[in-house]
Amino acid sequence: MDSVSVQAPATVSNVVCGFDCLGFALSEPFDEITVRKTDETGITIIHKDGYGLPTDPHRNVAGVALRAMLDALNADFGFSAEITKNIKPGSGIGSSSASSCGAVVAANRLIGDKFSKLELADFAMEGEKLASGARHADNVAPSIFGGFTLVRSIDPLDIVSIDFPPLFAAVIHPQIEIKTADARAILPKDVPLASAIKQWSNLGSLVAGLSKGEIPLIARSMEDSIVEPVRKSLIPKFDEVKAASMDAGAIGGGISGSGPSIFMLSDSMETAERVAGAMQDVFLQTDIEFNIYVSAIASDGVRIAE
Amino acid sequence: MDSVSVQAPATVSNVVCGFDCLGFALSEPFDEITVRKTDETGITIIHKDGYGLPTDPHRNVAGVALRAMLDALNADFGFSAEITKNIKPGSGIGSSSASSCGAVVAANRLIGDKFSKLELADFAMEGEKLASGARHADNVAPSIFGGFTLVRSIDPLDIVSIDFPPLFAAVIHPQIEIKTADARAILPKDVPLASAIKQWSNLGSLVAGLSKGEIPLIARSMEDSIVEPVRKSLIPKFDEVKAASMDAGAIGGGISGSGPSIFMLSDSMETAERVAGAMQDVFLQTDIEFNIYVSAIASDGVRIAE
Repeated sequence: MDSVSVQAPATVSNVVCGFDCLGFALSEPFDEITVRKTDETGITIIHKDGYGLPTDPHRNVAGVALRAMLDALNADFGFSAEITKNIKPGSGIGSSSASSCGAVVAANRLIGDKFSKLELADFAMEGEKLASGARHADNVAPSIFGGFTLVRSIDPLDIVSIDFPPLFAAVIHPQIEIKTADARAILPKDVPLASAIKQWSNLGSLVAGLSKGEIPLIARSMEDSIVEPVRKSLIPKFDEVKAASMDAGAIGGGISGSGPSIFMLSDSMETAERVAGAMQDVFLQTDIEFNIYVSAIASDGVRIAE
Repeated sequence: MDSVSVQAPATVSNVVCGFDCLGFALSEPFDEITVRKTDETGITIIHKDGYGLPTDPHRNVAGVALRAMLDALNADFGFSAEITKNIKPGSGIGSSSASSCGAVVAANRLIGDKFSKLELADFAMEGEKLASGARHADNVAPSIFGGFTLVRSIDPLDIVSIDFPPLFAAVIHPQIEIKTADARAILPKDVPLASAIKQWSNLGSLVAGLSKGEIPLIARSMEDSIVEPVRKSLIPKFDEVKAASMDAGAIGGGISGSGPSIFMLSDSMETAERVAGAMQDVFLQTDIEFNIYVSAIASDGVRIAE
């Protein structure tokens, strides 16, 4: 096997009341990544897209993730990765995570699947550290494990797969920039205990609803009393998009990652498409450009292309 | 049908990271309650135990719960309830909830099961309001629904049953008094967002672990970074009991309700009994009297005695 190609899908993190722990994988959009094992040590990154991302492996998220894997192997060989990004950087749907996870999954296949999913997630988190300054796993977890995932703990890394019924997402990405620093600065350092209790009661119910496949329970539990109320001010038309989506039949939704994308879940592809139409109608009344995606929640994460 | 007798079991609320929402029902100890329908309106309470609880129906938790039911029925009849309490008041294992839930479940059977479990919980919460000043459902929910329950919301009342594997509890009740006011006053009004995130990540994982029946995941998730660290100061020997229980093979545990009882979960009755022995050994070194209970987690709550 000379090379392995993968499709590395977009992911949604910070799922409503599951701030900083709950995420899920989409079927699309996805990045396409081909990794080759090279005789010479070191890493080569080639980007076949127009996003102008760094190709210096020390400054590229896939590069540092592959570096972590090579270091763990104490390897006398290297990797080259050819990346075609379809997930726009800064969209809030796990663009950096798709690159780093796709690269390590492909590389792992090349070396005979030596590493577990948890180890791959750990390597990929080096990419998140480079991209955002923090070793978080909110997007890495669904990207590697697929489906709905809950990051119980970062250190030690503990990722829990949550059972879930068929669900479909409509995602709108308004083409505005939200600086990570701003999205962080706006968060309160302390929260009222009463709000925290409300949040964890909702998250517990959401996990139960997903596990049981009970759509009405999922719907009732998708309430965020802590983060959405402050962060939504960074996203134009957030309330209108949410209201129009609910009118169109969505179960619930909120800010994807730290934005600017907004996601809404539905219980059928047909409804998700109607929701996407309602989202679009809101933004067509503005002069903000946007992309819209409609996708099933995928039970797998990075997929190896056969 | 002239009378209905029930066994109303003890319950554990505030299950570790599930403060103010997660609870479960024990098989024992339980109160025994017999309710009769009477031609005359009004409520009569008879206590056949030595706890000196008020028998004025307006000052008795079963009395006010039955009152709420009669009011909802706009009834031209009444109830009498004969209560033999085996769950000591003030123990932190849902003594008041057992009385009020047992009374309304028995009364509901007498009138042909007119009310849903959720409506019964709502009536029983009047008893909790009388006992503690707040309409909380932490003990009422497992008492009525059985098994593990999560109270997603009080208003509107929303109770979620959580699937769970066979689990067994050892509970020690040190005979000291913790005033509800003290247990409340010691809680912080605000908590760091980082602690809240840790708590809800653990609760989400705990619900997932219970739903999947994965004991190691349940064990890893039973961590309380907010309430236990402050409330344990009210319970002598808390850390020693917990450490001895874990050494004896317990999965995890913590303060039951607002104390003073301490509960520990195990994956077999044999282990739970060994844990109970370890708990006892700690308190035998003190001059504090105590009761110990070992019980399966019961999938049903109040049981109608046939």
